[in-house]
Amino acid sequence: MASLEDLAVSAFINILSAIGFLLAFAVLRVQPINGRVYYPKWYINGGRSSPRGSANGVLRFVSFNIWSYVVSFLGWMPQALKMSQAEIIQHAGLDSAIYLRIYILGLKIFVPVTVAALLVLIPVNVSGGTLLDLKKEIVFSDIDKLSISNVSPGSERFWVHLVMAYLFTLWSCYMLYIEYDNIAFMRLHFLASQPRRVEQFSVVVRNIPKIPGHSISETVDHFFRKNHPDHYLGHQVVYNANRYAKLVRQKEKLQNWLDYNQLKFERHPHKRPSRNNRFLGLCGERVDAIDDYTRRIHMLDKRIASEHQRILKEPKAILPVAFVTFDSRWGAAVCAQTQQSKNPTQWLTEWAPEPCDVYWKNLAIPFVSLSIRRLLISISVFALVFFYMIPITFVQSLANLEGLEKVAPFLRRVIELKLIKSFLQGFLPGLALKIFLYILPTVLMIMSKVEGYLSLSTLERRAAAKYYYFMLVNVFLGSIIAGTAFEQLYSFLHQPPTDIPRTIGVSIPMKATFFMTYIMVDGWAGVAGEILRLKPFVLYHLKNMFIVKTDSDRQKAMDPGSIGLPENLPTLQLYFLLGLVYAVITPLLLPFILVFFIFAFVVYRNQIINVYNQEYESAGAFWPHVHTRIIGSLLISQLLLLGLLSTKKAAHSTPLLIILPVLTIWFHMYCKRRFEPAFRKYPLEEAMEKDTIEKASEPNLNLKAFLADAYLHPIFQIFEEDEEMGEIRVDKSRIQPSSTSSPSSPQYEYGHDSPTHYEYDHISPLQHVYHHDISSFD
Amino acid sequence: MASLEDLAVSAFINILSAIGFLLAFAVLRVQPINGRVYYPKWYINGGRSSPRGSANGVLRFVSFNIWSYVVSFLGWMPQALKMSQAEIIQHAGLDSAIYLRIYILGLKIFVPVTVAALLVLIPVNVSGGTLLDLKKEIVFSDIDKLSISNVSPGSERFWVHLVMAYLFTLWSCYMLYIEYDNIAFMRLHFLASQPRRVEQFSVVVRNIPKIPGHSISETVDHFFRKNHPDHYLGHQVVYNANRYAKLVRQKEKLQNWLDYNQLKFERHPHKRPSRNNRFLGLCGERVDAIDDYTRRIHMLDKRIASEHQRILKEPKAILPVAFVTFDSRWGAAVCAQTQQSKNPTQWLTEWAPEPCDVYWKNLAIPFVSLSIRRLLISISVFALVFFYMIPITFVQSLANLEGLEKVAPFLRRVIELKLIKSFLQGFLPGLALKIFLYILPTVLMIMSKVEGYLSLSTLERRAAAKYYYFMLVNVFLGSIIAGTAFEQLYSFLHQPPTDIPRTIGVSIPMKATFFMTYIMVDGWAGVAGEILRLKPFVLYHLKNMFIVKTDSDRQKAMDPGSIGLPENLPTLQLYFLLGLVYAVITPLLLPFILVFFIFAFVVYRNQIINVYNQEYESAGAFWPHVHTRIIGSLLISQLLLLGLLSTKKAAHSTPLLIILPVLTIWFHMYCKRRFEPAFRKYPLEEAMEKDTIEKASEPNLNLKAFLADAYLHPIFQIFEEDEEMGEIRVDKSRIQPSSTSSPSSPQYEYGHDSPTHYEYDHISPLQHVYHHDISSFD
Repeated sequence: MASLEDLAVSAFINILSAIGFLLAFAVLRVQPINGRVYYPKWYINGGRSSPRGSANGVLRFVSFNIWSYVVSFLGWMPQALKMSQAEIIQHAGLDSAIYLRIYILGLKIFVPVTVAALLVLIPVNVSGGTLLDLKKEIVFSDIDKLSISNVSPGSERFWVHLVMAYLFTLWSCYMLYIEYDNIAFMRLHFLASQPRRVEQFSVVVRNIPKIPGHSISETVDHFFRKNHPDHYLGHQVVYNANRYAKLVRQKEKLQNWLDYNQLKFERHPHKRPSRNNRFLGLCGERVDAIDDYTRRIHMLDKRIASEHQRILKEPKAILPVAFVTFDSRWGAAVCAQTQQSKNPTQWLTEWAPEPCDVYWKNLAIPFVSLSIRRLLISISVFALVFFYMIPITFVQSLANLEGLEKVAPFLRRVIELKLIKSFLQGFLPGLALKIFLYILPTVLMIMSKVEGYLSLSTLERRAAAKYYYFMLVNVFLGSIIAGTAFEQLYSFLHQPPTDIPRTIGVSIPMKATFFMTYIMVDGWAGVAGEILRLKPFVLYHLKNMFIVKTDSDRQKAMDPGSIGLPENLPTLQLYFLLGLVYAVITPLLLPFILVFFIFAFVVYRNQIINVYNQEYESAGAFWPHVHTRIIGSLLISQLLLLGLLSTKKAAHSTPLLIILPVLTIWFHMYCKRRFEPAFRKYPLEEAMEKDTIEKASEPNLNLKAFLADAYLHPIFQIFEEDEEMGEIRVDKSRIQPSSTSSPSSPQYEYGHDSPTHYEYDHISPLQHVYHHDISSFD
Repeated sequence: MASLEDLAVSAFINILSAIGFLLAFAVLRVQPINGRVYYPKWYINGGRSSPRGSANGVLRFVSFNIWSYVVSFLGWMPQALKMSQAEIIQHAGLDSAIYLRIYILGLKIFVPVTVAALLVLIPVNVSGGTLLDLKKEIVFSDIDKLSISNVSPGSERFWVHLVMAYLFTLWSCYMLYIEYDNIAFMRLHFLASQPRRVEQFSVVVRNIPKIPGHSISETVDHFFRKNHPDHYLGHQVVYNANRYAKLVRQKEKLQNWLDYNQLKFERHPHKRPSRNNRFLGLCGERVDAIDDYTRRIHMLDKRIASEHQRILKEPKAILPVAFVTFDSRWGAAVCAQTQQSKNPTQWLTEWAPEPCDVYWKNLAIPFVSLSIRRLLISISVFALVFFYMIPITFVQSLANLEGLEKVAPFLRRVIELKLIKSFLQGFLPGLALKIFLYILPTVLMIMSKVEGYLSLSTLERRAAAKYYYFMLVNVFLGSIIAGTAFEQLYSFLHQPPTDIPRTIGVSIPMKATFFMTYIMVDGWAGVAGEILRLKPFVLYHLKNMFIVKTDSDRQKAMDPGSIGLPENLPTLQLYFLLGLVYAVITPLLLPFILVFFIFAFVVYRNQIINVYNQEYESAGAFWPHVHTRIIGSLLISQLLLLGLLSTKKAAHSTPLLIILPVLTIWFHMYCKRRFEPAFRKYPLEEAMEKDTIEKASEPNLNLKAFLADAYLHPIFQIFEEDEEMGEIRVDKSRIQPSSTSSPSSPQYEYGHDSPTHYEYDHISPLQHVYHHDISSFD
């Protein structure tokens, strides 16, 4: 256990590195050349007009003005805080605004809790004096004197802790309720004030039964004409374009190489670039690179064209999935919320995600397979969470030096060198773990994709949930109880259930210093590292050197990234857990969390305003998960306190704690029933209201044209643009605006009536094949 | 532990008592005077035409024909089996038919399991020979030689048990799947072939917000006109008629007394009956009974009339609940399945139950209160299940003799008499428990009512669930682990989770004989007692002697009862649990269960055909619960086998058992997604189909008139009938037909078009007040 001095050293180091990152950021961000690294959002949104305006014109040249660095060191902070919430919603979308509110919620919950805990609990703990008086032989830290460990067993002082636990729970629940209410309102208001969007009129239908002698398209048409006669407008079938998309991606890669070689040639016109034509350019004949790539792109073009034809002609390329559009939001809301068929596994309807939020690959998964996939993934996640150390230990045992020598005897001489040997011995065992932790989010995302959800937003939420379980078991429990998750699982199964909170509860106060250090490393320095954006910085400049020719290439080389919900949500939820658990037990941890919340809030506000470009807009669909996890943290904290107090012989107060979890669960269920439908369903009242307003303001709207090519596989859209404009653009920021309006600019556009924006007249021959008109539609 | 001989004695006694009951039934049922006890269904349904026809004309006089008794002893059995399933559905409703299928499912699962277990497992167990060879000192019964206890620890024979466990699980799941499929189909087919019924067009709306200056009725009308403009037809507000209903019930009771006294006077015309007019006739002046009752009925009539007026005039008497009707099944299906309002706690819509299934008292409960009620009831059920012994022990300690003497010293002399003392000492402690168990179903029903569900069918299902938990903990676990549920709970909390299946698993084989006896007492003799209907028999004859004047009175005195789902479903589920748990462990128990299933099937078939009159028709809505409980039983059986085998050192085979529960849970989730929507939602395809057929066959149907007074509080219907016909009928069998067609006769009535049946022209002034017409409706 660390003493206060150790902690101070750790704090000093972490603060220093945070300041280092901030300084680097201060230097780098004012260089105009880094504009596309630190302000990409402004390039995408408004054609590079920094919010900082011309206050200090440092951005027009490479800056040598020292004063500008001084201003710049923390100068971005007030700027990041200046934007109002409404502006952020308009600028970056509701998801981002709601994400920032999580930090504010953290502050709202923990500021009063910290004040109360420091003022009330620390004096109580200090004057409790067990550790000082009774157990001189036990090693304890100074921090333990301030924690609940310092109160002697059986003391009446535990009543204070009990009352505080009640107060903290009540306060947290109250804040959670207010926040859920707020966010539900924001969501509904946002949805209500959104301009006309295709997903409001669309429903995705899965598991369309195959009727012999009829095409999928005919079946869909017949079914919806019959069962939604008043509101059905048309549908779009989905093509299995996975192979086609692969070809297009190949072509894009070749195009990049071609660009690179052409650039090289331009810079050194005397030397025409050449390459070997086999095995990634490693062997084979030497050929002229530009000619080779041009030839191969040409060949690929032909294959793409024939694949395109095949998809259009072959009935098997049509998946049993369709996007069905309705003539009103009411009709779509009805279809999405009701059961269509007698067989509940057929004609499954749900809200269509935004076109840019659709994960096209998963549309083809049939019902039975879906159910098996979910079983397998649940088992894998369980295994991953509890047994992930097993393969790593195995790899580590392989990766030690003797193992390496056995596998590759020719390396022996190199390994035997002393310097290399000691380096490898220190480095190799940790490497496997580091690699694993680095690829973990990707693995979890792939797992979520296998589960078969339809939209990117859902996939991110599912990945976040998995990551949270991993962190809960391996970071939180794993740090408190020494040993691997597998050992924990074993001991949980072989311990009485009442002993588990007791075992954990007892070791909690002892781990407070560890978590303080963790918060400083992961929370303080980590967040400061986030603002530096080292990886995109390096990548952008590499691309800039080797590929970029035109401004549009530079636009493509830019990687704004997104909030990264799958990793950031679980991290945040872990901080809530730590705060709630330690609030009563070791209140001294709370200020560390407060600093994290404040600092991270400012940093992420800056990133959201200047950097991130959220790919989709889920209108805060992740909030119910955040709420549930915080409630879960409350429950965990209550159970652990119960376990801890039960070892402290506080017989009078402990039984009263049992009421807390019951009340918390009830509160959760109440909130779920009260607010969650706002995140899952679209009320008919709302739909009808918007329909009525729209009909009144735009009586002659041609909705059919508006909805015509909304749910076309993006790869086809590229293909068409390609044919029309003769160039390929696969960048996501390019795909987005082509499907109605960009999610990042949800301005109120009612009555503006700007048909050019929606590409009304842009109906390609492709759509005529599968878009069915209803003659009765006016 | 009982030996085989003890078991044989017990079997002999129970079979004897079962035969005794059957004999008594044989004698009683052929007496014409008991016709209304043993054949009430035929009186209600078809005006007393026994299915036995005139084969033996014993029913027209008191029978002294001995041959008829001989025929009658088991003669009812073939008759009970004669009716086909389709006929039963038509005669007694789908609920009854599906209820009977549970027994058949039991046979389908357990006949092959029994055969396999007896042929394979018993030889394996007998030749295992541990108990014979190794543990001579342990007391064991002959039955243990046939059970898994007889196999020596570490034996390779456990592979046989493992394989059998897999086979049994697979077979059970297969049968469950087939059955769920069948029943879902039956349900959909039944709903599809039902005649036009008001609940198909109706939705119940709860939590209507109060808008100042508007009545509830106006608010409802405005909301649905706006949000369901194409399909909204009208609505009926709900009056808070609880006080009114109480008055009517009082009047009915007085009327009964008046009838009784008048009958007495008719029989003894020389002596006019008199009574004391205070304290239930115990003190006060002596008055003429007939005059007194007539006067009081008259007074009550006035109060009823004024209360009726008050309800109609006072706006507060209108509850924020309404039954909204639509012009098509499609419109109602849409409204029932969608969210209406932005605030998810307002305008809650759900399918309207049948008018006779509505539990009117619960319509008034607001949302917040509902959520608190459910919390409180969950806690109470938990307490009831685990701590019910505490108050009983307390009462028992009070109810012993010393306690009684302290409370009531004047009783000392009586108590000190030896005979009375010993009787009381033997009797009192048991009495509290008996009373508790007797009133338990009623208590659980009251709890379910407090939870606030809207329909009787839901209430019965909820009560059944609670009863099941009680039985699971107190009968199943309570018998296996000696001690009260509270002690079990304590030991569960203080034992490692892996030890729990082990502790229970080890004692399971030892309790086999107990459960065999239990099955014989509760299953064999109990079911035979059910057919005798002792309580309704006594009550009917008492009523017949004292109250019955006319034929309609005799009709009222008849108590056909219903299947009693709240008690019978949990009992059946317990038998499934016993069978599945013991299938691998002590296969000898299985034949006992088979006998129960066969016998109970025949008895309940007879009761359903001849006796019970199901009050409502839920179209098998209880099936998902039955399915879930059987799956739960499978899981319990697997875990217990795992626990048992882990003590048997069968290290090779035990880990393979872990896969079974995972697969079972997955199977359950698959079934839930595949079939449950058929029980919760009404597919639009179905609704549209029926609408289309109806529009084609009856283009001029006046739906508004058909739906006019469907959801009127039954008490008002009585009142109106009362005014029209001058007599009161509160009997439920009378209320039923007045609300459209009787659920017990779901004949195919399409195209028959018999408007008189539906009381089309019967619209009282009351309805004109709250039934809003839509002018646009054609």
